[in-house]
Amino acid sequence: VSDSAKLLPTIDDVHQAARFIARHVERTPALHSYALDSIAGCELWLKAENLQRVGAFKVRGAINAMGRLDATERARGVVTFSSGNHAQAVAYAARVHGCPATVAMPTDAPRIKVAAVKAMGAEVIFAGTTSDDRKVVALEVAERTGAAVIQPFDHPHIIAGQGTATLELLEQTAQLGVKLDAIVVPVGGGGLIAGACLVAAAHDVAVISSEPAVCDALAKSLEAGERVVVQPGDTIADGLKPTMIGELNFAIAKQHVAASLRVDDEQIGRALVTLAVTAKSVVEPSGATALAGVLAHDIAALVPALAGRRAPLRVGVVLSGGNIAAERVAQMLSHYRPHPRKW
Amino acid sequence: VSDSAKLLPTIDDVHQAARFIARHVERTPALHSYALDSIAGCELWLKAENLQRVGAFKVRGAINAMGRLDATERARGVVTFSSGNHAQAVAYAARVHGCPATVAMPTDAPRIKVAAVKAMGAEVIFAGTTSDDRKVVALEVAERTGAAVIQPFDHPHIIAGQGTATLELLEQTAQLGVKLDAIVVPVGGGGLIAGACLVAAAHDVAVISSEPAVCDALAKSLEAGERVVVQPGDTIADGLKPTMIGELNFAIAKQHVAASLRVDDEQIGRALVTLAVTAKSVVEPSGATALAGVLAHDIAALVPALAGRRAPLRVGVVLSGGNIAAERVAQMLSHYRPHPRKW
Repeated sequence: VSDSAKLLPTIDDVHQAARFIARHVERTPALHSYALDSIAGCELWLKAENLQRVGAFKVRGAINAMGRLDATERARGVVTFSSGNHAQAVAYAARVHGCPATVAMPTDAPRIKVAAVKAMGAEVIFAGTTSDDRKVVALEVAERTGAAVIQPFDHPHIIAGQGTATLELLEQTAQLGVKLDAIVVPVGGGGLIAGACLVAAAHDVAVISSEPAVCDALAKSLEAGERVVVQPGDTIADGLKPTMIGELNFAIAKQHVAASLRVDDEQIGRALVTLAVTAKSVVEPSGATALAGVLAHDIAALVPALAGRRAPLRVGVVLSGGNIAAERVAQMLSHYRPHPRKW
Repeated sequence: VSDSAKLLPTIDDVHQAARFIARHVERTPALHSYALDSIAGCELWLKAENLQRVGAFKVRGAINAMGRLDATERARGVVTFSSGNHAQAVAYAARVHGCPATVAMPTDAPRIKVAAVKAMGAEVIFAGTTSDDRKVVALEVAERTGAAVIQPFDHPHIIAGQGTATLELLEQTAQLGVKLDAIVVPVGGGGLIAGACLVAAAHDVAVISSEPAVCDALAKSLEAGERVVVQPGDTIADGLKPTMIGELNFAIAKQHVAASLRVDDEQIGRALVTLAVTAKSVVEPSGATALAGVLAHDIAALVPALAGRRAPLRVGVVLSGGNIAAERVAQMLSHYRPHPRKW
């Protein structure tokens, strides 16, 4: 990581990224469900990154980062490490930019994600099951081939790119006359939430994180006041299993995150099924983690700044990804009960 | 049916309905999926009425029709007959307007729809399995109690209300710089497609119908040049089983429908599953019927007016409803294979 990469990105970088990536990504809709609101007890605006190209927000950062390489760098190719969605995003961005890509993925990555990466023309190397395992392999490839490393979360261009999801959500709700009180964001390495912080801080919107309880790297780090290494436990949210929050990501998050939520698999699974039957939206478990946080916790009680606000609270929720196979959706729908509908 | 009800509605009535219902319905999003486009071979814009209040477009017509009743009429209550979604729509609209409602539903109506109608405070009477069976019972109730009959499809206010879905879709795509070539609409009694015709005719957009092959009342009627009674066969599209297209509906449709498609349960089921895994959207089988038509037929070859258009065609598809229980979605996902993703 070069020195320039250590500089914290700003909202200006997010605006620049938005212009830069517009041609290559979807402006995904902000979904609203009357039925889901009645269950949540607040007015929810769902940023549908499950509808994003390659099925997840990750393509925003990847397109932004890779587009900054010059022709010589692109010719040498790119390399990255990811449990799945960032891998697909880099494969997609590499195809857009016509450059070779190598991706180190965990041996337990969902097959649907591995197949997609290969189908877009990237080379896959399997490497252990933790983000450290695959990072080591990716850095070896970079050393050997001169390929540029496209970081999954700990880089200004990645953070600025991911921030465009929140920027769009605030624009979309503002167009409808809706002023969000808070935005709830799932956390893996922290790219999405760091980007959300840059945007939300400029608009008086509280940022709330949601993580699997068995991999609560951000919550633990915020409690400790410094980055903490965690040993990820088993969770259905396979995209949210970093051992540590990124350095830049934590530097930004610790300034802005107003509350950090933890959810278990039962809560994530029920949120996923509830989304399917009320907001008619299919997400992967990681993509249901922010909603799980909203449904499992009383946000107004957790964030002092929101205590005085008129009810109902207006809350943005990022549905971060939708890469899940049909059979697995069927399993989830059979296994978890939706929250009961209120009429 | 009064004489005034026999007058064909116009696009002005749709514009009026749009203003009238705006406070009570969702402006549902127009979804776009890069992944689904690659499968369909055209650019699809999905009008997500599965996200509409009560889970289907039917609330548009019900709110529009019931809102025209005066205080005395409302106090006498309303009555209707429906296989499900119109029943929910009338129950919802009656609650909004504070008036009692009775609904005649088929004995084989999905339990989720019956439960919703009751939960919103309407009285349910079960009556046979065909639309004629339940219409007879509803008219008896009207005679006995003086309740106003809210027609499911064959009425100017209903047609104008349903037309607002197409009006919004054309506004939403136009805002994105997209000019639709065609719109594909599922057909039961013909309320949705008649409304679509009123709007599309004013915008040079071809209207294409899609029906279950075992209940092809519109296609048969268009071929015969007059309304034909059909004996509905078994189909998973439980919302699309009228014995005959409405009178006003056919009068409008025969002027404007450019092609009529027939699809079987296998095609509907595959479209439903494909929607879930690519456009991440949950619909009921009736709601997948328009997409099934697009995926099973070569639209450009069927509509002479579209033959010369630049590829890819830009096609609106109405996802008409999303009222399906979690277990049934799971069954469909296990039973039908999605169309293979192209990368």
